[in-house]
Order: sequence, then structure tokens, then C-alpha cells
Amino acid sequence: MTVPTKILLEESELPTHWYNIIPDLPSPPPPVLHPGTLEPVGPDDLAPLFPMDLILQEVAQDSYIEIPEPIREIYRLWRPTPLYRAHRLEKSIDTPARIYYKYEGASPAGSHKPNTAVAQAYYNALAGVRKLTTETGAGQWGSALALACRMFGLECEVWQVAASFDQKPYRGSMMRTWGATVHSSPSEMTNAGRAILAQDPDSTGSLGIAISEAVEVAATNDDVNYSLGSVLNHVLLHQTVIGQEATVQLNKVGETPDVIIGCTGGGSNFSGLSFPFLREKLAGNINPVIRAVEPAACPSLTKGEYRYDFGDTIGMTPLIKMHTLGHSFVPDPIHAGGLRYHGMSPLVSHLVDSGLMEAAAIGQVECFEAAMQFAQTEGIIPAPEPSHAIAGALREANQCRESGEEKVILIALCGHGHFDMAAYDAYLAGDLHDYEYPSEAIESALAQVPVVA
Amino acid sequence: MTVPTKILLEESELPTHWYNIIPDLPSPPPPVLHPGTLEPVGPDDLAPLFPMDLILQEVAQDSYIEIPEPIREIYRLWRPTPLYRAHRLEKSIDTPARIYYKYEGASPAGSHKPNTAVAQAYYNALAGVRKLTTETGAGQWGSALALACRMFGLECEVWQVAASFDQKPYRGSMMRTWGATVHSSPSEMTNAGRAILAQDPDSTGSLGIAISEAVEVAATNDDVNYSLGSVLNHVLLHQTVIGQEATVQLNKVGETPDVIIGCTGGGSNFSGLSFPFLREKLAGNINPVIRAVEPAACPSLTKGEYRYDFGDTIGMTPLIKMHTLGHSFVPDPIHAGGLRYHGMSPLVSHLVDSGLMEAAAIGQVECFEAAMQFAQTEGIIPAPEPSHAIAGALREANQCRESGEEKVILIALCGHGHFDMAAYDAYLAGDLHDYEYPSEAIESALAQVPVVA
Repeated sequence: MTVPTKILLEESELPTHWYNIIPDLPSPPPPVLHPGTLEPVGPDDLAPLFPMDLILQEVAQDSYIEIPEPIREIYRLWRPTPLYRAHRLEKSIDTPARIYYKYEGASPAGSHKPNTAVAQAYYNALAGVRKLTTETGAGQWGSALALACRMFGLECEVWQVAASFDQKPYRGSMMRTWGATVHSSPSEMTNAGRAILAQDPDSTGSLGIAISEAVEVAATNDDVNYSLGSVLNHVLLHQTVIGQEATVQLNKVGETPDVIIGCTGGGSNFSGLSFPFLREKLAGNINPVIRAVEPAACPSLTKGEYRYDFGDTIGMTPLIKMHTLGHSFVPDPIHAGGLRYHGMSPLVSHLVDSGLMEAAAIGQVECFEAAMQFAQTEGIIPAPEPSHAIAGALREANQCRESGEEKVILIALCGHGHFDMAAYDAYLAGDLHDYEYPSEAIESALAQVPVVA
Repeated sequence: MTVPTKILLEESELPTHWYNIIPDLPSPPPPVLHPGTLEPVGPDDLAPLFPMDLILQEVAQDSYIEIPEPIREIYRLWRPTPLYRAHRLEKSIDTPARIYYKYEGASPAGSHKPNTAVAQAYYNALAGVRKLTTETGAGQWGSALALACRMFGLECEVWQVAASFDQKPYRGSMMRTWGATVHSSPSEMTNAGRAILAQDPDSTGSLGIAISEAVEVAATNDDVNYSLGSVLNHVLLHQTVIGQEATVQLNKVGETPDVIIGCTGGGSNFSGLSFPFLREKLAGNINPVIRAVEPAACPSLTKGEYRYDFGDTIGMTPLIKMHTLGHSFVPDPIHAGGLRYHGMSPLVSHLVDSGLMEAAAIGQVECFEAAMQFAQTEGIIPAPEPSHAIAGALREANQCRESGEEKVILIALCGHGHFDMAAYDAYLAGDLHDYEYPSEAIESALAQVPVVA
């Protein structure tokens, strides 16, 4: 069968439901705990931050949850997204492997993030919320939420990690074009930001710090809610439209994936692609390797500890059992700003811990070499985040060249790099380097993690 | 019939031929003249700059020219492109008009330009050429040619208009990522550039100057050819894949356009969309208004003279009969860098002169207001160039609200604005303004145009 370059779906094939993997798992992930009582948090604990519809999705036991039509109306501005066969990339490295990439950069914000942003804005608007606050790293999440808030008439206020705020100024312009307000984090506007700046006036920030700032503003204002771009169950749930489409698309060309690879910061795009395939794996229908690739400079899954920790830096959030480098760990300013997070989605951590998924860490130089190879063959210039998935795929594909195996490799190309060109400039100028493995910083941060029996 | 948000085509529906409108016209456009002899130029005159395959396309009399498979292979990386129904934009302005936009921003370079860049790189590679030189304004053309050269193993050297080189630094990064070399124009590297800088060391450049530089290097090196991103017949020919797809897509939803609108700098995206519809108009099957929208700061079709002039600033090119503001006219540095050209495609000029098409000029503030309205409803952030087409469409759609007419408006959304966010920053800061109509500068430039009987 001749495989076309792009495998497309009609709008009528847009998923009607999100897929919730939790009821299909051999065991549920450990509960999220209240930091004071160490009891599992209930809906009331989350109500200051999230609308009840999302809280119920967070703990849902249904396998499929219907996507409301107003959300599908927005999804149709870019969904279903294309699945590409990387014919030219394969040829350039002379591999017998067949590489497919699901491209989420076709969304107006340029990444997979609007899949959940639109859902979160919708439910908050339905609940009468006036404004959403959030954090953003590279700016992909912030711009997605800005877009989504504009679509449903909400205000949007974004704290962007200082390192990325400086590296990628035009992400902020994009957010403002869609009507959002953007601050560099740590900022002087919150207690959390002021506390960090008091310790380190030159702080380059981190996702954990920016979360603290956004949560603080939401928690202290009645008509303001908070929105998170990854980590939580309901976020991963919304992203499953990616993998549901990809299963249909691969079926259309008669393929079954042997390896599924995505990059992980909080884990949402990786989960979005892989969970619908993991469902088939749990049912015994297919048996792909499912691999998360994280930055060597922020290796929570491969070098962190699987234990309860705070989701943010200051310690305002509930305690989450996840692979963590310690909530006070501040990663080096690698260009993949969206992956600079000390923790991980508790669901991904649970799945890696139980052996249903695996993880690898790759340094940014190898990732950018892979991104260049990709851009020069497939045309699309990837964001630094999915360059980790591409690097992981090239490792597999190069092994296939040696072994002669014709593996089917499926990757999540979760966004384009149009707002990350300074990173490519650095690579082309020879100024990009790998950071040393931050063992002492991690050790010191892990020492500050609360001990939960 | 319910119209979906996106009307998609399968790869099997990718056009197999380009459409050449010349044999279908009531009269052919006036010939291009040799500046010395004032005789029509022949293939030999063009051979120092272009490969013979493209020269033959420039003067072709066939209605359809087959697209070679290696070009279609690259086209399939993003083509066919989607046709959108602007449901949300329509609703936001309460118009009974139905607005469709053909979106070319899905290409890896983010615009329609690769449609011809890929073809030109292919034919040059086939002819054994080592390197292509070119000019670029906003950078859309330069990045498209960089991509195309990379795909066919050619070197690529780009002169970018200084105003855009400074405003949009990351377009250069994109070109370099695909392997090209980029210079700010006017540069010290060419006689043409040095001559301009001697007169005006602070020159912000123009497409005409950058063309002079790129042509000079190609003309003085045996294994180097020149590539033009608009204006010429063969460029417009390659762009007709846009309109051919759009005719099929509108047919699928049972629509016939009443008004077709595109922005014009050199005229290639406007022609690419409209020529296949003009073919039907000439055959008496449909009767749409076909309208070019140009910047009020560079109004060649609406304020220029229809006469022979040079295509570049220095006067190295053949003489072309076109609407011109004078080859020495340097437009104000509006953000739509791709539209800052003193002349026009001779084919578009001929069609406007013969009444088959019409033209309007719109200032950049109205264009950015339209672009904001578009971004906040449809999500996609348009490049400044197609914001002119959007502004033209909004004028029509607002008139329909008054009159109650249900016109079908088709526009060319030829690229996204991800590399133009500084322009949006200026708009949001209130720093964007319209330039005064440059009547004296145009008068003075027109006085320098050679008189051809």
C-alpha cells in the first residue's frame, strides 16, 4: 500500500468524546493529598481554583466523556490535525523504519495546547468566571489559553517564566494580540514572586514559580480561576483527541505502531498521543513500546524520585505523587522552556512506575541536531520541545538501519518553532551546549521535599 | 447545505497541471522589451538569469503545463491547502455575506511562496545550476526559496530589504535554518548596493534595490541563477495551484464567488487564486468581481502609470509594461514588507487595464484593525500582507450588512504573521500610523522612467 505524505481526516471524523484511561488501568494512580491533613483532596478543596465540571473530570470514572459542541466548534478551526509519513526524513537517514508524526502545530497557537485550553475556557465561562490566570514556559500554553479565553469572552492573565519571556518576546505579542496580559515571572505582583526575588533578584524563573504566582492570584480573587496547561488528569483527558485521531489515521494506512515517542515536561502531549494506544495495549490488541523523552537538564522521570511533592515551587498546591526533582529545583535555561518542570503528571508517573511506559533523557544539542535534520527534510521547523521526540525517534530509526528492522515509529510533533528561532540562531552559531547533569542541585532540592508516609 | 469550517482535499486531488491564462485572454499582455534595443526580449536574453524550462514557461502558449512529479512530491508536504468558511468572523460583524479564505500559511515557510520556489529550484537543479540568488521583502519569499533550495540541494543567497531585515530578524534565522545566506539590502557586496548607499547611507531599502543586488550577482557568475518571487508570468503560473484547488473546494459546497479579493505587491498570490476563476469568467460561466488590494503607501495599480519601466531600481532588468510608481520610488517602511514594490506583474496590469480586474488601496491602520478582528474570531494571526485582503473583504461584508446582500466573498489568506509580531506590538501600543500619500515622491520617481514610444 502506498502511504501518502499526509493522512487527513474529515471534520466529521473529529472525536466526539475524550478518552479517560483511569478506569482501564490495572490500579488507579495514588490520590492527590491535602498538604495540611494529608487526606485525599475533595472537590471542595479544588473549588477555589477550578470550576466543578473540570473537578469532576479530574476524578471521573467514565471511560469516555462527551465533548460539548461549542468546544468542537473551536476545535474545527484546526482539527482533525494531519498525520504525516516522514518519507523524506526516512530516506535521508537510510532507515527501513517507517516514521509517522502527528502534527499539532497546525493550531492557531502553533501547538497541541489549545486542545485543553479551549475546554478549560469553555467550562470556566459556563461557570461565570471572569478571568483565568496561568503560568507559561516557552509561551505555548499561555498563547493557547489567551486564544481560548478570547473565544469564550474571558480575560486572561499570564505569568511567563523569565528565561523564556526574554528569549521569546513574540510569544507575548501573540498573547496580547488575543487580548491577554503577560508578566515576566518571578514578578513583583505576588507574594510568591516577591519571595523568590528577595532570595535571587536575577532568578530566570521556572514553571513551578510561575504556577505559584498564577495560583496565588486565582486563590485570592473570587471571580478569578486558575488554569493549568499540563500535569492534571483533566488536561491529559482533553489531549486524547490527538491519539484518537492518530489511531484512526494509522488504521487507514494499515499500520500498527511498534514505538510511540513524545516529549514530556508535564506529560500532556505525550499522554494525549499515547493513551488511546495504551488502551489497545492494555486490551492485548497491540504491544508498542511507549517512551517519554525528557531533557537531560530536567530529568524528572529518569533521575527524580517517585514520591509526594508540591506541584509548584512555593508549596501552595496539593501534594502529588509524581517523579520529582524537588519543588525548589530550578532547571538550567534550556531552550525547551515548556519542559522545564520539576515534576510530572501523576498519571504518567504512575504508568512509568508500573512499567506500562518508559522514559529516556536526551541533551539539547542532540535534540537540535535532530530538529535540523527534520527541518531540512520535512520542511517543518519544530519547536525545541518536540525536538526531544524527534531525537528519540532518530535513535530508534538509526538502530533499525543497523538491525534491518522495519519498525513503525509514531511521534508527537506537538508544535512548530516559529517563536523559537533564537534557539536555532544559537545552534547555528555554535553557541548551544548541554548543561552538566545537575546532581547537586537535585539532591539539595529533594532534601526539601516533605516526607509523606 | 451545512458548510464545514474547513473544506479539505485529498492528496489525490492535488492539481496535476499549472494553468496558463495567457492563451485564454482576449489580447496578450504587451511584450517585455530589451532596454537597449527596445525589441521584445528573446530566450537568449534571459538565459544568463533563468534556466530554459522557466524561460519557455514565461512565453508558453499552452493552457495547461504538467507539474513534474518531484515538485508534486514537495507540494504534498502541505498541499492541498484548506479552504475555510469564516463562520466566526461573519457572525462577529453580523453580515449576511459568506466569507471563504484559502489559507496558504500551512506551508513550512508560512506563505504561498513555496508554490513557485519549489518549481524554480527544481528546474534550476535540473539545469545544473549551483546557487540561486534572490531578493526578499518581509522574508516570506526568501524563506520559501531557502526551503526549496534545500529540498533540491542548491545553495541560496538572499538580499533582504533593510527595513524588514531589522523589523523581522527571525525570518533570517528561518532562512539560515534551511541553509541559506542572508544579507541586509542595500549591501556593500554589490555595485548596485554600494551606489544606493553612496547616495543614502541610511537607506531602508526596497524590493527594487534588493532585486538589483541579486540580479547583479547572478548575471556575473556562470553557475549562479536568479529567482524572482512574483511579477513574472511563470511565477504567476506556478501559483495557480491555489485557485485550482479553491474552485474544486467551492464546488464541493455548492458555492460560486461574487467577489474575489487578494493583496498585491507583485501580484502572484492574487493571480494564483483568481486566474482559475477568471478562466471561468472569460468563458461566461461565472461573473465575479476580482479585486486587488494594495497598500495606500505603495499604490501602483491605483495611483501609478501604466507604462514601460524597469523591474528593479538600478535599471538592470528588461523593460516591463506595468503600473509603476517609478523604479526609483522607495515606499515608506509599512509593515507589509512584501507589498513594498514600485511595479506590478505585467499580466495583472494588463488585466486591470483591460477591465477584467479592479484595484483598491487601503492604509495599514485599517488593515491591522481587520487583522485583529480576524485573529480574535478565526484564531489565525494573519501576515500584514493578507491583512489587506481581509480589510477589503470586511468592506464588502459590511456593505452586505447594510444592503442585505448574501454575497460570497473569497479571499487569499496568503500567510500567517508569526514573524510579524513586532507589527502587532506597534498596533497594540498605538504606534502604528498611516503614511501620507507620497504624491511628490511618486511624481519625482515617475519623471525618471524612460519614455518608450
